[in-house]
Amino acid sequence: MADTYTDIGFAKLDLSRKERTGLPETIFCAGKTKEQLVEILRTFQKKNCAVLGTRCSQEQADFVVSNGLAVEYDVTSKVLTLGEPLPNVGGKVAVCCAGTADLPVAEEAAKTLEFFGSEVSRHYDVGIAGLHRLLSKIEDIRQNDVIIAVAGMEGALASVVAGLVSSPVIAVPTSVGYGASLGGLSALLAMLNSCAEGVSVVNIDNGFGAAVQAFRILKLKGKNND
Amino acid sequence: MADTYTDIGFAKLDLSRKERTGLPETIFCAGKTKEQLVEILRTFQKKNCAVLGTRCSQEQADFVVSNGLAVEYDVTSKVLTLGEPLPNVGGKVAVCCAGTADLPVAEEAAKTLEFFGSEVSRHYDVGIAGLHRLLSKIEDIRQNDVIIAVAGMEGALASVVAGLVSSPVIAVPTSVGYGASLGGLSALLAMLNSCAEGVSVVNIDNGFGAAVQAFRILKLKGKNND
Amino acid sequence: MADTYTDIGFAKLDLSRKERTGLPETIFCAGKTKEQLVEILRTFQKKNCAVLGTRCSQEQADFVVSNGLAVEYDVTSKVLTLGEPLPNVGGKVAVCCAGTADLPVAEEAAKTLEFFGSEVSRHYDVGIAGLHRLLSKIEDIRQNDVIIAVAGMEGALASVVAGLVSSPVIAVPTSVGYGASLGGLSALLAMLNSCAEGVSVVNIDNGFGAAVQAFRILKLKGKNND
Amino acid sequence: MADTYTDIGFAKLDLSRKERTGLPETIFCAGKTKEQLVEILRTFQKKNCAVLGTRCSQEQADFVVSNGLAVEYDVTSKVLTLGEPLPNVGGKVAVCCAGTADLPVAEEAAKTLEFFGSEVSRHYDVGIAGLHRLLSKIEDIRQNDVIIAVAGMEGALASVVAGLVSSPVIAVPTSVGYGASLGGLSALLAMLNSCAEGVSVVNIDNGFGAAVQAFRILKLKGKNND
Amino acid sequence: MADTYTDIGFAKLDLSRKERTGLPETIFCAGKTKEQLVEILRTFQKKNCAVLGTRCSQEQADFVVSNGLAVEYDVTSKVLTLGEPLPNVGGKVAVCCAGTADLPVAEEAAKTLEFFGSEVSRHYDVGIAGLHRLLSKIEDIRQNDVIIAVAGMEGALASVVAGLVSSPVIAVPTSVGYGASLGGLSALLAMLNSCAEGVSVVNIDNGFGAAVQAFRILKLKGKNND
Amino acid sequence: MADTYTDIGFAKLDLSRKERTGLPETIFCAGKTKEQLVEILRTFQKKNCAVLGTRCSQEQADFVVSNGLAVEYDVTSKVLTLGEPLPNVGGKVAVCCAGTADLPVAEEAAKTLEFFGSEVSRHYDVGIAGLHRLLSKIEDIRQNDVIIAVAGMEGALASVVAGLVSSPVIAVPTSVGYGASLGGLSALLAMLNSCAEGVSVVNIDNGFGAAVQAFRILKLKGKNND
Amino acid sequence: MADTYTDIGFAKLDLSRKERTGLPETIFCAGKTKEQLVEILRTFQKKNCAVLGTRCSQEQADFVVSNGLAVEYDVTSKVLTLGEPLPNVGGKVAVCCAGTADLPVAEEAAKTLEFFGSEVSRHYDVGIAGLHRLLSKIEDIRQNDVIIAVAGMEGALASVVAGLVSSPVIAVPTSVGYGASLGGLSALLAMLNSCAEGVSVVNIDNGFGAAVQAFRILKLKGKNND
Amino acid sequence: MADTYTDIGFAKLDLSRKERTGLPETIFCAGKTKEQLVEILRTFQKKNCAVLGTRCSQEQADFVVSNGLAVEYDVTSKVLTLGEPLPNVGGKVAVCCAGTADLPVAEEAAKTLEFFGSEVSRHYDVGIAGLHRLLSKIEDIRQNDVIIAVAGMEGALASVVAGLVSSPVIAVPTSVGYGASLGGLSALLAMLNSCAEGVSVVNIDNGFGAAVQAFRILKLKGKNND
Repeated sequence: MADTYTDIGFAKLDLSRKERTGLPETIFCAGKTKEQLVEILRTFQKKNCAVLGTRCSQEQADFVVSNGLAVEYDVTSKVLTLGEPLPNVGGKVAVCCAGTADLPVAEEAAKTLEFFGSEVSRHYDVGIAGLHRLLSKIEDIRQNDVIIAVAGMEGALASVVAGLVSSPVIAVPTSVGYGASLGGLSALLAMLNSCAEGVSVVNIDNGFGAAVQAFRILKLKGKNND
Repeated sequence: MADTYTDIGFAKLDLSRKERTGLPETIFCAGKTKEQLVEILRTFQKKNCAVLGTRCSQEQADFVVSNGLAVEYDVTSKVLTLGEPLPNVGGKVAVCCAGTADLPVAEEAAKTLEFFGSEVSRHYDVGIAGLHRLLSKIEDIRQNDVIIAVAGMEGALASVVAGLVSSPVIAVPTSVGYGASLGGLSALLAMLNSCAEGVSVVNIDNGFGAAVQAFRILKLKGKNND
Repeated sequence: MADTYTDIGFAKLDLSRKERTGLPETIFCAGKTKEQLVEILRTFQKKNCAVLGTRCSQEQADFVVSNGLAVEYDVTSKVLTLGEPLPNVGGKVAVCCAGTADLPVAEEAAKTLEFFGSEVSRHYDVGIAGLHRLLSKIEDIRQNDVIIAVAGMEGALASVVAGLVSSPVIAVPTSVGYGASLGGLSALLAMLNSCAEGVSVVNIDNGFGAAVQAFRILKLKGKNND
Repeated sequence: MADTYTDIGFAKLDLSRKERTGLPETIFCAGKTKEQLVEILRTFQKKNCAVLGTRCSQEQADFVVSNGLAVEYDVTSKVLTLGEPLPNVGGKVAVCCAGTADLPVAEEAAKTLEFFGSEVSRHYDVGIAGLHRLLSKIEDIRQNDVIIAVAGMEGALASVVAGLVSSPVIAVPTSVGYGASLGGLSALLAMLNSCAEGVSVVNIDNGFGAAVQAFRILKLKGKNND
Repeated sequence: MADTYTDIGFAKLDLSRKERTGLPETIFCAGKTKEQLVEILRTFQKKNCAVLGTRCSQEQADFVVSNGLAVEYDVTSKVLTLGEPLPNVGGKVAVCCAGTADLPVAEEAAKTLEFFGSEVSRHYDVGIAGLHRLLSKIEDIRQNDVIIAVAGMEGALASVVAGLVSSPVIAVPTSVGYGASLGGLSALLAMLNSCAEGVSVVNIDNGFGAAVQAFRILKLKGKNND
Repeated sequence: MADTYTDIGFAKLDLSRKERTGLPETIFCAGKTKEQLVEILRTFQKKNCAVLGTRCSQEQADFVVSNGLAVEYDVTSKVLTLGEPLPNVGGKVAVCCAGTADLPVAEEAAKTLEFFGSEVSRHYDVGIAGLHRLLSKIEDIRQNDVIIAVAGMEGALASVVAGLVSSPVIAVPTSVGYGASLGGLSALLAMLNSCAEGVSVVNIDNGFGAAVQAFRILKLKGKNND
Repeated sequence: MADTYTDIGFAKLDLSRKERTGLPETIFCAGKTKEQLVEILRTFQKKNCAVLGTRCSQEQADFVVSNGLAVEYDVTSKVLTLGEPLPNVGGKVAVCCAGTADLPVAEEAAKTLEFFGSEVSRHYDVGIAGLHRLLSKIEDIRQNDVIIAVAGMEGALASVVAGLVSSPVIAVPTSVGYGASLGGLSALLAMLNSCAEGVSVVNIDNGFGAAVQAFRILKLKGKNND
Repeated sequence: MADTYTDIGFAKLDLSRKERTGLPETIFCAGKTKEQLVEILRTFQKKNCAVLGTRCSQEQADFVVSNGLAVEYDVTSKVLTLGEPLPNVGGKVAVCCAGTADLPVAEEAAKTLEFFGSEVSRHYDVGIAGLHRLLSKIEDIRQNDVIIAVAGMEGALASVVAGLVSSPVIAVPTSVGYGASLGGLSALLAMLNSCAEGVSVVNIDNGFGAAVQAFRILKLKGKNND
């Protein structure tokens, strides 16, 4: 195990993740100080590592920019990137979401995948309350290698989609809702209990996690069967 | 309040419920001894009250019959009835269920409604994993005044149906499932969080409760607008 | 299925819901930006659709007005409406609530029903701690076709009312309470376990959902029996 | 602290509880072997202590009797007693329960109080689904010094009673119900959230605990104000 | 039932509670606007009713005073009173709490009881981490007719006290703690499971509820045995 | 949508699932009567559909065999199959489990995949309590296209594996454990919160669901990039 | 890492645990077949490893004995041992439990420690309902290096003991109780929230886990300070 | 029991804790007013007691300093100390944490231990997502007498470490995470279910509690075996 990392005191930056897991470096920005974030980004920049940051607040992003780091920042998804996106990995991912309020989570997934070099098609506000909206798009959705289904409230979108396609569906419950939605637990539980097969689930609001899983799957496509 | 009841020691039999709430007498048989059940049924029989019993075990039913009470018993729904069904109340109820395992709950609803004098159409095994099954039946379902949607696991049937019809949908979560279905809580929570409007929910496995609510609604149909 | 919708990027506005489900367009304002709200309202205005918005903040309402949209706004219920209410649908709904703190939820139900063309009678602060208040009003309440019972804390109002009337009771648990009220879960669970029949339940604080269900029920009243 | 106890290996029998807390010895029989139960009872018998056992199975009771111990046993309440009841403590307790299925818990409370020397009036099957049954008895109930309210499902009996009387109400949630009753948790939560004042709550199915609390309260009645 | 109330629009003020339940009027101030609070207090003032308000914020209290109402306000307990305390009811209540952070809840109980005319002894910061503090006070505590035990975290104070006294113990779990204290649920559950008899429990942080229950109990003391 | 199904009364057998989702027919045997199971299998047999049944009890399997159906049955995994396995789909799946008690779930996954035509390597009893067991196998595990990680208790196997490989990890929490394992919920929650990326999760004990998801992923391998 | 294990198909027996963690081999017997258990024991016997099995049923033990393995079995603790206990490790552990029903868990801890070569003193039935029993033993308890506190229901024993001693307290919640004890969760939560310092907690009913932790602590005693 | 305390009105300061439990005085600052904190610190200062305060806000610390008290304050751990650290107790503790966001909890443990006179080695950001970071440090970690493992999310660090060392592991779940981390409950549950032996657990974010337990353990090291 020739893995290496850089110890910068408050963090041990994992420099071998890409080799080990095939993914670029990523930073969960929430819970880090602005100064820590700048220091981490600089360290990676010096190593010429492309980096993707998630849950980056506007304030953090502004501070990073004001420190001269050449990052891109998207306010809806709170995704921040440093360096060039990865080359095209091949394959296509559909990111579907049930309602407008699910957009930040859906965009976290989409922006992450695009930075990883994946082609993304967006199908937003296709919740099952108006099933015709989903059905009118289903042929487009079926053209994709992986489907990410993002939904809060009762989270039924994942089950309905999985019953209509043959690709793997990564379900992302969101905290959209109130009362008995229990901060997304209801959608999470519903997705785990999907009567339709082919659904696996990530944490509530974890658009990034769904994107990583989709990326791991896409990489199989280019591989030869042996 | 000229309400009356009969006190038979271990129970106060409510003899005015029909006048007060429009419903025949009903007995929740689970948790009553065979002897108590016989005594209660005899009391109502003497008053010429039609009675419906729910969650009646085969053993209880056999004992009741062996005591000379002229009851009808259905083993799937565990519904036992004494006396004639009520006259036709008008209106129609669709009872839909997601899977075969939901049948006992669906039949509890259907049998109850039929005893109350309501017309019932059954639409079973129309779960959303194979959406085409539901869609092929949706025009039939739309012809009903009330829809009862029975489902376990992720309980999405209620939301999907409610988005496709304009009648009120009474959702019945069932305890069908395992693991994260939490004995029906996941389906219950999903139904309460339905993104489609027009869904109200009763307790887990409470087919009887859904039938009563449907019956209360149906009675409106015959009323004049004033 | 000739359903249609308008795609405005961040949302697919469902223009066929009224035909499909009998209800006017509605917007859940919480979680939408002011700008999104204005754009959605304008789109519907251009189509001459009456629209009802729920959970609209004072700030959102002010912004909408300042953009020249001729809406009505009620601060207690947070209901915003655009266009004329629907014509009278016939039938009457009683909206009952247990305490003063339940008013916003009760008013969300009442205002929604009034916009939908339903006659509403309000019976507020009739919680069971002072049962005489409820009993003194029960004859008035019985004159209604549907009862909406709104209560937090132990939520017993729904059960007590359902035992005293023969109309369907739509129960709305509220988040009023503290400690073991668990944000409304205790009231929700109590309502689902009502020992009185004829109660079905919607999500915590979901006055709007109760109103929609009441409206779906009311529409049956005018229909002929066939 | 001159407290003493007898150590019989698997248990340290508290022989000073009566002096310390005013109560006779009690044994929670569930979870003890038949042999342990006999040994404990014999020890107390030798010391001429009256003893009350709760949750005693028929099998345990039979074994105790077959070992020559002169106990009384009641199969509904599962209460077993050895020795004479305590002299009358003064005061009266009403034990009310919502339904027939709550009887075992209600009788555990009643039998315990009677053994402790308290006068008990029973008011069974007065659940709020048929409120007239409760209201017709309320004047009788008001004549008592303490009210024990036993109910499962939504547990509303405690709140309704507490709003109608001025005595303290000890609420006992029961595990009667199914689905969302969560084994009595729903009733427990409802009772803790009572909008009516004057309710305090014991554990689910804990009729014995309610009786002890009622007994502690009753003892105040004979005391002079100082 | 000759009960009466005053309807002031947003509330039905219960004017017969004192006759019915023996308690003065009380107002739960949280969740009421300043203006509503003033209107309610004025209504009671006109009827010469003494009133106790709980969970009254400093801002509410200031507004009430600035409107010329002659109230007393205590910032720790957030109790506001209008009019004279009730005459001495006889009997004594010990209010015990585990830690300094439990003081607001303990004082809500104590202030309420004092306004109701009860004598209160305070025993604060007697948590079981330093058991000697409690044991050194236990003789004083035993002199009381009712014990109120207030504790957060693991809530063991109630059980320990109940094992050492023969009076009824009213347990009040508090939301003091963090993490697995679950906002007071852990203390609540512990108190409900007390291995010591003689404990009944009220809602989390409900010092007022404990005081009312203690008051209902105290009133028995003056009554003759009949 | 040219989907079709066969209605056999208690079930609507989905005959187009293979075309729609790429999977053979499957039956969840638990909750079906022996007679229903035979009827379903016969229907599929007549259509020459290969079928896989999960959670089939020994008693069900014996009954099926005694009815002349030529099925294969594996008692550990409770998997029953009718007809020939699918042709090799290409790609390889590693099924890892933490302990011996997880075997039935792991074998459900493995047997399902083998019937679907996938190559499976088993890595059992590699729980992290003895990390050297896992590390000694990690190179073998890395050779697979998809990893299924099966674990109960604290479920850490999924996170540890995901940090060591670059393939997608499908995590299956099991109900192995006791007390605070909460029937598998603790493992489920841990897997959803994996700090390592590349984990998506299915329901507790759902080895079948993991296999289906792995199969959907494997099918991508043979596809050309377009 | 020169760790090794033996692969016997359904299990990888960890043969280096003693060197790595200082503990003998242990087997969690529950969930293993009789045959598996015999095979595992034989494997260890051949390697002359002493082995301790926990949660071994009487039936399993009988089968093991009938297969000629020279094991010791204790029916209360369900502990089975093969080979000689370890030599005395030095130091003493007090195992305290609250009630008679906690004995199986307490004995699992005690028997395990004795097999590991630790001296154990038992202090049973010292629950806080009769605090004098605990206080009369506290000096004895203080003589120990580690205290294991076993309690169900409200679990207060751990907190009370920890406030009276200076040694580390390992708390073991048990599933003893009913209703709101939630299968031991209430005791678990209480112990985690102990207001007394010096308490750390293991899983519900995990007497074995507490023993292992006590053993790991005891081993420090013999070490020199460096 | 010659224990003593000082009563300063709102608190009973425990002056005998050090003798009784071997620990210096400690103050949980959260939930105390600035003025209370100053008064408590002054009381201890007059008695020449060293004191450690936890969860002290910057504002509290500033106020204390401005009142002339010579305290040390660390903003990351929120630990405040008055007086000299205790003399070296002997032994060493490793404080490990999974990620940067766990630092405040880890530092609370470390700073507390250092004030208590213990030697601490810090191993931060060694979460299992990059296992090589932990494995590269494991020999250093093994040199310690006690290991404190701090982790949020899935909390697997504790299990992995416990499987690799022979010292006792005190696990501290943290509230780091989102969604299904449930404020640290998921990590807590995982740690309680550790498949590796030798883990005991304290409350969520309770770095202080872990430090106290480690200190109690360390004190054994100096003791002779008797």
